[in-house]
Amino acid sequence: MKLKDIGEFGFIKRVTRGCLIRPQHVVKAVGDDAAAFVPRHGEVILLTTDLLVERIHFLRNATSGYKLGYKSLAVNLSDIAAMGGTAREAFISIAIPETCEVEYLEDLYEGVKSLAVEFDVNILGGDTTGSKTDLIINIAVVGTAPENEILYRDTARVGDIVYSSGFLGDSKAGLHLILNNIHADSETFRQLLKAHLLPKPYLREGRFLARRDGVHAAIDVSDGLSSDLGHIAEQSRVGIRLYAEKIPISQNLKQFCEQFNFDAPAYALSGGEDYTLAFTVSRDSAAAIEKDYFSQFGFPLYPIGEVTDSKRLELVCQDGEIKILTSSGWDHFRK
Amino acid sequence: MKLKDIGEFGFIKRVTRGCLIRPQHVVKAVGDDAAAFVPRHGEVILLTTDLLVERIHFLRNATSGYKLGYKSLAVNLSDIAAMGGTAREAFISIAIPETCEVEYLEDLYEGVKSLAVEFDVNILGGDTTGSKTDLIINIAVVGTAPENEILYRDTARVGDIVYSSGFLGDSKAGLHLILNNIHADSETFRQLLKAHLLPKPYLREGRFLARRDGVHAAIDVSDGLSSDLGHIAEQSRVGIRLYAEKIPISQNLKQFCEQFNFDAPAYALSGGEDYTLAFTVSRDSAAAIEKDYFSQFGFPLYPIGEVTDSKRLELVCQDGEIKILTSSGWDHFRK
Repeated sequence: MKLKDIGEFGFIKRVTRGCLIRPQHVVKAVGDDAAAFVPRHGEVILLTTDLLVERIHFLRNATSGYKLGYKSLAVNLSDIAAMGGTAREAFISIAIPETCEVEYLEDLYEGVKSLAVEFDVNILGGDTTGSKTDLIINIAVVGTAPENEILYRDTARVGDIVYSSGFLGDSKAGLHLILNNIHADSETFRQLLKAHLLPKPYLREGRFLARRDGVHAAIDVSDGLSSDLGHIAEQSRVGIRLYAEKIPISQNLKQFCEQFNFDAPAYALSGGEDYTLAFTVSRDSAAAIEKDYFSQFGFPLYPIGEVTDSKRLELVCQDGEIKILTSSGWDHFRK
Repeated sequence: MKLKDIGEFGFIKRVTRGCLIRPQHVVKAVGDDAAAFVPRHGEVILLTTDLLVERIHFLRNATSGYKLGYKSLAVNLSDIAAMGGTAREAFISIAIPETCEVEYLEDLYEGVKSLAVEFDVNILGGDTTGSKTDLIINIAVVGTAPENEILYRDTARVGDIVYSSGFLGDSKAGLHLILNNIHADSETFRQLLKAHLLPKPYLREGRFLARRDGVHAAIDVSDGLSSDLGHIAEQSRVGIRLYAEKIPISQNLKQFCEQFNFDAPAYALSGGEDYTLAFTVSRDSAAAIEKDYFSQFGFPLYPIGEVTDSKRLELVCQDGEIKILTSSGWDHFRK
């Protein structure tokens, strides 16, 4: 079905069904000049926004509408997770080229809604418009957190242990499969693809960490671990030393790197879009937090290094050599 | 200067100067995973977002970066105005093609900032990315309002007088000049162009109206008066009767319509992007509100019709004939 057959307002009517997931404290949902909602008493508002552009962030024929919608919301939820917040309301702006079918777009909204339901997030509004060539999606997400529990990038302290909440590099490997037209004919490849197309937002985990004393700084790994930890180091005016042998690498990535002859720790360090949390914890809180985290979530935290006073990002290689890392993550304008 | 010479983070450093206009109640501005700010005590949060796409909403060579930035924020402020709110924080997502120079983009941010300063709005964050062909700008604006003062679309009452806060159709005439490559060689044409490229957000006026008893429903005229009043009529389950002779038409538009042989009231009714407020007021409050508005702002309010129980949008023509109006405003997918 073509959009021109149902028109802008017909389309909006179709996709807004099921968007109001948590009606409490919503004063006005979709359908007016702006949405209106009551903030959480005593909490600070968090706001993040991410723009996804066809041929830059995704290839329309390499993902389904559902997965694209899911990921568009997931990357925003991940930012709220990295602040230690609770995600509350989402706003979807979409610019749609004529080549895009209504069915693809309905599938896209289903992907957004399925993740919104999982995390009790309302879709309260947005904007719908045309586009000459590329499909464009901007999502803004409002979250909340108690002011004294928010996790920043500039609060790491010398001596902290640096953690990742999950495996690194899987998403980059999934992207490699897509860009090189490699058919995902094994469970290994399918899992790597999934890491790229359906990233997990660590919202519950971020909230858990934010409540604990001793968790100092946090970021989500979107541009690549070394680039993102570079932000923490720069903004906190500290250094970070990572240990190659401690970088958490999945069995899937190990197999992938063996098959394609990549160095797995280097691949994991420079991989973007993992959307795990990278964070720092004071040494005397670390053991208790690791233990309680595992008993709550059933997954371990991965200690990968420590905060130093060197102001540099260093990697201790498996042979003991120390390399200075530069921000080798993603920069949208430098190629 | 090219973006690839300064990189994504170099660009962000340049344009974020001067973005924090009102530091009070801001917990974290640009530079973390999300912005954090304290909501206004006892007020509701309003949130609106608008996506502007090159070749759909603007032609890069027909406007300056400054004007494009100004308008991108203005259309969002207009939505907050139509809810009767105070605009507080803005978030700019931008996708930039390689053909776009740093100077154009800095000019764009200057346009955003000049309007932000005028209305005491912070620019607290956003997203910066690449684009293959088109320049894309999404702005989200957070506003606040006391819950009992918000102006909705679904609260018009039979018997209300319908107003516009300004002239209609000027913006459409300005767009006509651009699309037909007509050089703006007269003050008349320059004013029409200005109405299209630098629309005024009626924020102070919206706040004034929201505080007054008797103001019932409001919308901003973005798609065209008949389309936008159609939303009020449909959502309020009422009809609206407009009088052609009362549609406020500027001297500039009169001259333009004479020169190009257009019917001025019809042109004004179907013109989009005026960003005036259209609203309804109970008959017994109307005179006092008109008077106080004029003494506060120095501009009149224009009564253009009344709310009826017909559920139709009607236009009483200058010869007395009554026409049924359909929503002849802008639909992004029906051409």
